[in-house]
Amino acid sequence: MAEEWTPEPWVYDTIADALGIERDRVENLVRSRVIRIRSYRGIMYASLRRELAGYPEGTVILFGRGWSRVVHGYPPIQRAVLLRVAVPRHFIDKVVVEEKLNGYNVRVVLIDDRVLAITRGGLVCPYTTARLTRLLGEKIKEALREIGADDHYLAGEVIGLENPYTRYFYPEAPKFGYFVFDIFREGKPLPPRIRDEVTEKHGIPHVPVLGIVDKDDVDSIKAILEKLNREGREGIVMKDPEYRVPPLKYTTPATNIGDLRYGMRFFMEEGRSFLFSRILREIFRAYEEGLQGPKLDSLALELGTAILKPAIETVTLVAKGEMVAEEFELEFANADELNEFVDYMSSLGIDLVILSTWEENGFLKARIRKPKDTWVEVRKILETGLTPID
Amino acid sequence: MAEEWTPEPWVYDTIADALGIERDRVENLVRSRVIRIRSYRGIMYASLRRELAGYPEGTVILFGRGWSRVVHGYPPIQRAVLLRVAVPRHFIDKVVVEEKLNGYNVRVVLIDDRVLAITRGGLVCPYTTARLTRLLGEKIKEALREIGADDHYLAGEVIGLENPYTRYFYPEAPKFGYFVFDIFREGKPLPPRIRDEVTEKHGIPHVPVLGIVDKDDVDSIKAILEKLNREGREGIVMKDPEYRVPPLKYTTPATNIGDLRYGMRFFMEEGRSFLFSRILREIFRAYEEGLQGPKLDSLALELGTAILKPAIETVTLVAKGEMVAEEFELEFANADELNEFVDYMSSLGIDLVILSTWEENGFLKARIRKPKDTWVEVRKILETGLTPID
Repeated sequence: MAEEWTPEPWVYDTIADALGIERDRVENLVRSRVIRIRSYRGIMYASLRRELAGYPEGTVILFGRGWSRVVHGYPPIQRAVLLRVAVPRHFIDKVVVEEKLNGYNVRVVLIDDRVLAITRGGLVCPYTTARLTRLLGEKIKEALREIGADDHYLAGEVIGLENPYTRYFYPEAPKFGYFVFDIFREGKPLPPRIRDEVTEKHGIPHVPVLGIVDKDDVDSIKAILEKLNREGREGIVMKDPEYRVPPLKYTTPATNIGDLRYGMRFFMEEGRSFLFSRILREIFRAYEEGLQGPKLDSLALELGTAILKPAIETVTLVAKGEMVAEEFELEFANADELNEFVDYMSSLGIDLVILSTWEENGFLKARIRKPKDTWVEVRKILETGLTPID
Repeated sequence: MAEEWTPEPWVYDTIADALGIERDRVENLVRSRVIRIRSYRGIMYASLRRELAGYPEGTVILFGRGWSRVVHGYPPIQRAVLLRVAVPRHFIDKVVVEEKLNGYNVRVVLIDDRVLAITRGGLVCPYTTARLTRLLGEKIKEALREIGADDHYLAGEVIGLENPYTRYFYPEAPKFGYFVFDIFREGKPLPPRIRDEVTEKHGIPHVPVLGIVDKDDVDSIKAILEKLNREGREGIVMKDPEYRVPPLKYTTPATNIGDLRYGMRFFMEEGRSFLFSRILREIFRAYEEGLQGPKLDSLALELGTAILKPAIETVTLVAKGEMVAEEFELEFANADELNEFVDYMSSLGIDLVILSTWEENGFLKARIRKPKDTWVEVRKILETGLTPID
């Protein structure tokens, strides 16, 4: 089943009404693919690939004949690079310090009493939807029904190894976990305290709250970060207890360098902004911590190694004729669910290769390979000795 | 004197004729600023800011009522990253190995018997024109007249410390030198041998020819590069003796790392592509040379240090209230020439600050500061603790 089609006229009207813009504009935006119209198991939706009419990128309009529902894109969180400056200046009094988990951002909404999992980009991911429904479906339905499923939705991080996007091992959810970081009511997040009450009442995990500190007590925040760094965990999100100001995020050096080490394996696709943004974080961290002499040398060596080594390893592997790809295991209820997911990825231009499938505890497991442009690009460079990039 | 104005109708016709495209298209391209129309001391010209109608970016159409002359943009030179693969595969038999000098690319054309110096981007630089005219004006005129000034022009590197673009010390031209790397006839380069004959006959410097080697003799090329690297020089351009195939370039690790070290002082403007392209060169060099163990560690440390240290120094300077800017000395014939240059840079959106001027050997010397966005950006980050880049 192809997921995209030429919509009937009423579709444009519905989207235009939902966003409060002209119908002609919607038609143009669909044509220029700023608005993407797709469907998931009979539920139609439009997603915004950039900010539009006050709605952030990744906003989704779920709709049918005679109804529509807007789910706001998850707002980008500003990054602090100098905690001692940013925290006292940005916050009002107290700061809720929550753990930032390393996975992917998923909004969960109830439509027709069905759980839908929406990715950051604004697509309903069939894999995440199915797994999340099996894991927490009933609990999520109960919680959302209680607070009002028509105008509330959840936002949280999917973590663990069994997903097609960001695989990172967490002892608390080795395979697949979902941790709520916000409950939204019509695009506005509720205070963290309410999120904890609602989720705890219904047995839904939420992100760990690591402390509630005074905004001038940056030392306590640094102590939290040092512990996370030692454990190789990603970082923190800091929130006002009442959400009166937007949250800020900060990542540990372990993550900045670790990201580089992992990303540089696929250096031809990750390069540029990826590299620069992580280096920027370390520049300001080194400045704030006053790193000098051997400590700075050791960071420089670690950074240089994280950049060069995985990339050289990739070149060496490709030169030996080996393939460079991401490989991962996913769990499906059955072959239909697997096919639906493969079709979905293919509709996004990603052609997955199924390496093997087997049954396990009544589920269908699949080992899947996602090809990487780096492989093709490096092969070209190895053949010609020339680089396409100056 | 403003350098841009709304052109009369005949101007569009002249440019359209010269490029062989429709007049309407020229009008649109001028409006969208793909074609920039300017003048230098009464000579009008249009420059192409991207490839158009088969003419490369940086192509210039010099014109007046009833005449026009196209000077092709200098073609980009492909970069080799694996010499042992690229050289034997790309070349036919022999390879002329020339030194790649670290300065800026300038085409020199004779119009009305006046020397004009055109930058890579396709603008007549008043400073370069004036200095080059004083240094080599008569010799260039003689040479171009002899081979045909109407259809020939020179392309070469301006090097030395007294220029507003790329300052790098060379003992052979500490202040301002011009070294021809190509003579073009209607967009086609002449063989290096002819370039050497013509320039040597008229006392015009050309780039050093470091060897003519067999295409399979990559060891000799590597030996040349090692010597250049030890001397901290930039690299090589390799040419077919008859220009039957396009040239290739290769830079020394000293330059790749040195560029990073210098560029990271201004990391907010240089970041991204700058960083990535240089790292890419070192990845493939390390692979080709089989760097491992302590040698790879030492490169990693050097790379990490070149990235972090200058950037942290910049942050520290800005935090102390100091300014981060490029500063340089230029030489002018008189105050008019200085003002003309300042106006030119200002028309490009660069507001120079004259720190001081003085007389020296009958010339007007000026110490000039070019402000850097990094200064403004870093001040913002130091004030807010937040980064605009994720």
